[in-house]
Amino acid sequence: MTFSPEELEQIRQHAGSGFPFSARTEVKVLALEKGYTKMLMPFAPNQNHVGMMYAGALFTLSELPGGVIYMSSFDISKYYPIVKDMSIRFRRPATTDITVEVRVDDDFVEKIQKEAEENGKADYEWECELKDASGEVVAISKNTYQLRKIGM
Amino acid sequence: MTFSPEELEQIRQHAGSGFPFSARTEVKVLALEKGYTKMLMPFAPNQNHVGMMYAGALFTLSELPGGVIYMSSFDISKYYPIVKDMSIRFRRPATTDITVEVRVDDDFVEKIQKEAEENGKADYEWECELKDASGEVVAISKNTYQLRKIGM
Repeated sequence: MTFSPEELEQIRQHAGSGFPFSARTEVKVLALEKGYTKMLMPFAPNQNHVGMMYAGALFTLSELPGGVIYMSSFDISKYYPIVKDMSIRFRRPATTDITVEVRVDDDFVEKIQKEAEENGKADYEWECELKDASGEVVAISKNTYQLRKIGM
Repeated sequence: MTFSPEELEQIRQHAGSGFPFSARTEVKVLALEKGYTKMLMPFAPNQNHVGMMYAGALFTLSELPGGVIYMSSFDISKYYPIVKDMSIRFRRPATTDITVEVRVDDDFVEKIQKEAEENGKADYEWECELKDASGEVVAISKNTYQLRKIGM
């Protein structure tokens, strides 16, 4: 199954507020296509006691594309993802809105779905760079997810 | 400088709501002593769309003791901490309130402060186990912080 552009736009508008924790951060999905998303974590509601974006908000921004990319790119009628492992390195203070982009291609998705179809599950991973308004990388994450076959 | 029991109780009561992001999770500091804290992330406000505690709430619970232990155990008039690196492995679904305990001894604190005094900064790390209401470990994190000398 594949979503139409109109359906993707619906997902884009609502993906940031999919559950209360993410809604409270006011995270936004700026762009969503099959295999691509760009998300934004706003600075104001997520700053800590010393005027930087809190590490937990940066973590959240780096993790959420896992679900958003899943919805736009994987067969959600057959598989669902879980997050297995995350590591995140904080390189410099985040003092503006922060964005992240994740892109996967069809081969990547097909290979994972094939393995999940055969074995019931398949691990996959990617790296994220979180960038501030001037394009500086404030944090780098490595995300490991697992796609699972529904009903296994 | 060392806080009195009354001052530690004041810190305990307010540490969970030190800034809006943490306050929104309703995280609680259950216990706070010099060198020790136990914190709790409540399930209800932090569950995701499939009824498990969201990964970002687990990350937050594993990270926040860094600041709480700092306040109770380090010389806050001379040093401040930053979080450098976090890795977290999600072992099983979290479907109850989740707790974490962190304990450090005086030698650990003194060694770090001595290094920060001499070099302006000192890295330190610990591991956290996040446990559910039945004592099962739902996630394990490795936290790397850096203590910095104020004014450097």
